Amino acid sequence: ALAAPAIAQSAPEIKWRLTSGFPKSLDTIYGGAETISKAVSDITDGKFQIQVFPSGELIPTPQALDAVQNDTVEATHTCSYYYVGKDPTFAIGTAIPFGLNARQQNAWITEGGGQQLLDEFYGQYGVVSFVAGNTGTQMGGWWRKEIKSVADLSGVKFRIAGLGGRVMAKLGAAPQQIPGSDIYPALEKGTIDAAEWVGPYDDEKLGFAQVAKYYYYPGFWEGGPAIHLFVNKAKYEALPDSYKAALKAASALANDVMMAKYDVKNVTAIRSLVGSGVQLRRYPNDVLEAAYKATFELYDELAAENANWKKVYEPWKKYREEAYQWFRVAEYTFDSFGYTMQAKG
Amino acid sequence: ALAAPAIAQSAPEIKWRLTSGFPKSLDTIYGGAETISKAVSDITDGKFQIQVFPSGELIPTPQALDAVQNDTVEATHTCSYYYVGKDPTFAIGTAIPFGLNARQQNAWITEGGGQQLLDEFYGQYGVVSFVAGNTGTQMGGWWRKEIKSVADLSGVKFRIAGLGGRVMAKLGAAPQQIPGSDIYPALEKGTIDAAEWVGPYDDEKLGFAQVAKYYYYPGFWEGGPAIHLFVNKAKYEALPDSYKAALKAASALANDVMMAKYDVKNVTAIRSLVGSGVQLRRYPNDVLEAAYKATFELYDELAAENANWKKVYEPWKKYREEAYQWFRVAEYTFDSFGYTMQAKG
Repeated sequence: ALAAPAIAQSAPEIKWRLTSGFPKSLDTIYGGAETISKAVSDITDGKFQIQVFPSGELIPTPQALDAVQNDTVEATHTCSYYYVGKDPTFAIGTAIPFGLNARQQNAWITEGGGQQLLDEFYGQYGVVSFVAGNTGTQMGGWWRKEIKSVADLSGVKFRIAGLGGRVMAKLGAAPQQIPGSDIYPALEKGTIDAAEWVGPYDDEKLGFAQVAKYYYYPGFWEGGPAIHLFVNKAKYEALPDSYKAALKAASALANDVMMAKYDVKNVTAIRSLVGSGVQLRRYPNDVLEAAYKATFELYDELAAENANWKKVYEPWKKYREEAYQWFRVAEYTFDSFGYTMQAKG
Repeated sequence: ALAAPAIAQSAPEIKWRLTSGFPKSLDTIYGGAETISKAVSDITDGKFQIQVFPSGELIPTPQALDAVQNDTVEATHTCSYYYVGKDPTFAIGTAIPFGLNARQQNAWITEGGGQQLLDEFYGQYGVVSFVAGNTGTQMGGWWRKEIKSVADLSGVKFRIAGLGGRVMAKLGAAPQQIPGSDIYPALEKGTIDAAEWVGPYDDEKLGFAQVAKYYYYPGFWEGGPAIHLFVNKAKYEALPDSYKAALKAASALANDVMMAKYDVKNVTAIRSLVGSGVQLRRYPNDVLEAAYKATFELYDELAAENANWKKVYEPWKKYREEAYQWFRVAEYTFDSFGYTMQAKG
């Protein structure tokens, strides 16, 4: 008579609903939530079920964080920076312009003090967070015309959101926020001049190459965007410890698998795009340098006006500065030499 | 009466022993096995226990793979390339000279077909494998004198093992294989001229800076060495599916945590080393270029004489070539621009 309740307590049947921040068509990034769901179910012999819904099926992405806070759904798997409208500090957990690459972002969050700082901030919205995916450095967008200098940005309608958009606005561009599904017709009609989306694999599926010939890099506003699993804090805390541990490990699995998928799929997609006539272009140095200057001015402005930003940004910036110094030594030289030898043929 | 046996089958008490390939003093890389052990225990409410032993306490590292194959212990957490004496193909799972960086190695194994190729090969030794850690690009070793050109390598006694040692031998050096604990006195007495170990954090603890002033980079023979969990195949297959899933997710957690720890600890250690007078030196281009040429000659020799090598190496090489093309675009340009701006001050 004692055994049954004890077992019921340690392995209860739990069903959660998770609203993804992404449509199913973005299979790699959407797949992160599926990886978590499957791993948690497999680990618990099906006792802990997390049902994944695409963005908009239950909850549109802009309302997903509120929905988790209000316990309408238990979780969302999404980009923290979709919520910069609530507070720009949400951007730091994902990526901010000229920030960290994927390894550095993982390191800062996991072992560099970032997790605690972010969870203190996210805690104001009633959620806890797990890093659960990354796309790597994104591309810099599809342009109908070449950009030769900062002057060419003046008045151009560039589909780019968040802090990247604020930096572009400082350079004279007119950032546009339109949903992914509306980008193609807007580029085709010339309603917008340029649009950034993700990277080769995701971009190729939307066919942008047919309406904008120049494919710029790098997406300097997203050097290594982390995707997060956000969970209602009370629901998380009510989980048995074993399910908490399962959720943490499953998130790490999603983190690894998503990055690996992008690092295989983009390799194929960039070859296919270039083979079909897409013109790769590096943003000119004067654009990058002006954007860099504008970026750190923006960060200082935010630090002066927003205590949340200041609290998370300052230790983040210290890690960035010191990490860059180290990564420039062994890691960067290894990459640099290998790529140079390849370019020589 | 039915419930108890069913529960016993789905969550049996299992105790495994794992021999680490590393001493406890290498806390970050040794810690990978502890991360796996803790996660698996937490996830299963303590039912699946993996006890971790430092290298040599039960089994010395060179015998660990045999010990897992023979089921003397169930698992080892180690570098596959420690077993190149059995077959050079063991090196590919960890890192081979001028190979992949950490992200690329993860991608190739996880999503690029590597896991299947490696497990077919490892299966000849009765084990299954999980990627469970990485150090990132290692440093190129501690030298008592500066190396100005390939000529300076002639006859120098360099503590370096595996395929890196075979490449160095082609360049005229005399590779030495001595255990980590013997490096310091050998460098101090001048019995050896140089020694490679890991990177700033691990190297600093052994005090090499006191006996060899020049700290070279990059460790081109280890661009992104993956650390593996190897498990006796029959023991793995006998696990309940839920424990298999737990082991997989726990390995992913160890993979993330180890990389993040190195990417935080090395940042601090390189500053400390440089602050104490260590002289950082990049290997001269003629050394790197000669090593690059010697490396790919070696790979062709191995492909001609070893069917295992050929089978794993050729698809690996294809991924490397195509991945380099993609990583050179967004990822490398993002890093490159950021590091350049930092260097400008």
